[in-house]
Amino acid sequence: MTSLHIAGNVDATLVSIIEGGNYNVVIALVDENTREQVLPHVPCLRKAPVIEIPSGDDNKTLATLTQVWQDLERCGATRQSLLVNLGGGVVTDLGGMAAATFKRGIDFVNVPTTLLGAVDAALGGKTGINFNSLKNEIGVFATPRAVIVSTEFFATLPREEFKSGFAEMLKHAMLDSCDSFSRLLAFDFENIDYESLLAQLKTSLQVKQRIVEQDPTEQGLRKALNFGHTVGHAFESKALNEGNPVPHGYAVAWGLVVEVVLSHMMMDFPSSKLYSLARFVKDNYGVFHITCDHYDELIGLMQHDKKSCAGEINCTLLKECGEVTINNTVSPESIKAALDIYRDLMGI
Amino acid sequence: MTSLHIAGNVDATLVSIIEGGNYNVVIALVDENTREQVLPHVPCLRKAPVIEIPSGDDNKTLATLTQVWQDLERCGATRQSLLVNLGGGVVTDLGGMAAATFKRGIDFVNVPTTLLGAVDAALGGKTGINFNSLKNEIGVFATPRAVIVSTEFFATLPREEFKSGFAEMLKHAMLDSCDSFSRLLAFDFENIDYESLLAQLKTSLQVKQRIVEQDPTEQGLRKALNFGHTVGHAFESKALNEGNPVPHGYAVAWGLVVEVVLSHMMMDFPSSKLYSLARFVKDNYGVFHITCDHYDELIGLMQHDKKSCAGEINCTLLKECGEVTINNTVSPESIKAALDIYRDLMGI
Repeated sequence: MTSLHIAGNVDATLVSIIEGGNYNVVIALVDENTREQVLPHVPCLRKAPVIEIPSGDDNKTLATLTQVWQDLERCGATRQSLLVNLGGGVVTDLGGMAAATFKRGIDFVNVPTTLLGAVDAALGGKTGINFNSLKNEIGVFATPRAVIVSTEFFATLPREEFKSGFAEMLKHAMLDSCDSFSRLLAFDFENIDYESLLAQLKTSLQVKQRIVEQDPTEQGLRKALNFGHTVGHAFESKALNEGNPVPHGYAVAWGLVVEVVLSHMMMDFPSSKLYSLARFVKDNYGVFHITCDHYDELIGLMQHDKKSCAGEINCTLLKECGEVTINNTVSPESIKAALDIYRDLMGI
Repeated sequence: MTSLHIAGNVDATLVSIIEGGNYNVVIALVDENTREQVLPHVPCLRKAPVIEIPSGDDNKTLATLTQVWQDLERCGATRQSLLVNLGGGVVTDLGGMAAATFKRGIDFVNVPTTLLGAVDAALGGKTGINFNSLKNEIGVFATPRAVIVSTEFFATLPREEFKSGFAEMLKHAMLDSCDSFSRLLAFDFENIDYESLLAQLKTSLQVKQRIVEQDPTEQGLRKALNFGHTVGHAFESKALNEGNPVPHGYAVAWGLVVEVVLSHMMMDFPSSKLYSLARFVKDNYGVFHITCDHYDELIGLMQHDKKSCAGEINCTLLKECGEVTINNTVSPESIKAALDIYRDLMGI
């Protein structure tokens, strides 16, 4: 089991993990950004060998993974060594895969340095690389020894990255309870209180950890975490195909609106909460523009989603915040009706 | 947990596994030998897409693994697909790794077609490839859905391959009991009775399965399976470095003799059984020639074994057949004394 540390200070937490582990070599994995902006703030890694990979999803490749394997050997890593992944989702996904496959698995710790990385990638055991233009096509489920989440590196994040991560928190809140959901809707992006953010992040990650522990390899319950993503991924892919990529979390925010519409249509999810969500998303994320001419294209993308089977569109839906049902088959007609309502709510 | 099938007929067993699994695509992984000699005898795979890799340990590489990933995509494999690995250790190790990492893991079944593959590689969840000239440097622990062991493809094996596999059975027998050990010493390589071999194979694999289930990722007990291998690997590496490679199982047989000598010296293992083993190995495997000039080289190789730590030589030793102790540190002096006795016993 992963130990989850919500920490004011990354360095002190990491020191205690390293001391408890009896490691012969501790190695830091960074990208060019975290080498410059994060590594100097983690003094316990000052003398550690460093492996640097180029930042960005384009570099989440087999070539980069191969380089990390070679560098692990160069650094003298053995089965008794520890890899510390300092970065966003690319570093923790690829570093986790490198550690999980080097000599059939060495310990690794994830220190997410972005909000999206903290909420989406660092916890949950999914590791991987892109392959043949397919996202996360090659990977393994592997449990980090620990995940250390702190807000100390978030203040310098671009606002867009921050909001992208926040959308995943919104998802966790809706999976959790009405209380969690309404607390997040009161969030003020203009005056971020990092102390209360850390507390909210803790609640958010505990929701995820509870689900992942019950279903580590996504046989059932874990599909709950896919909430908002069936439609969200279709929006993301459409934007990417047109050469106007949108941040992942923005696509999830818009996807959440459509899937809450579906939840209202099919499960009687309360309309008042749907309206609150739609307003919050519109105010903070803007809108994703579509017309009815795009419906068939979007439905085609949903039918080819990794989680779909035999062309059927599979969604996680809610009866209420905290009342989750997985494996709902949604007809193309229902999707079209929901997209109509989404456009109404967004004023498109 | 892996279901272990000791089967008279591979095809019938595979049919029942496939029917029970609700797979959308079943794919066969073979090498050029098993495509020709084994695949035609498994009619249920007649219409299955086939992925072929080149045979031999030299091809257990990242390049071959990458090709298999690409072929899995070409064959339309999804998370609901099954990969059937038909071959020796290279096919089951590399195929297991491909399946375990494709889309974060699809089901796979191992059908070992050699005795060594059946006893050593197919069961136990170790998968992997060689990397940077290091054996099994990159890999994962991954549990096959099933292992189907049959002797139906063994009759055409070269005698040397057969004996190589038999040495691992000898190891399992010594880990198990005096009875198992004495039964194997009566084995007649000139007139192989495949029916009683299948029964002995079943006992042998159950010994391994019992150990692996208690310690799947080699934290402790599983090191018992390393019996004979600390010295055996050193013999194997020395022979390879000199350009005269010896079969893995032969090196294990000679390694067993030395480690039983150590067991006698350090744990009072009965000398009568040591003499029986030494005679059996000498009669059936010949001798591995060394002089006292080679001792330091061999000790150096043992100190760099993957299972050693900080230069200490780590051996599994026996008090008696079936009474196993792991994590014994053995001094270079003891190794030298044991190699002296090995040379005496072997008449070198």
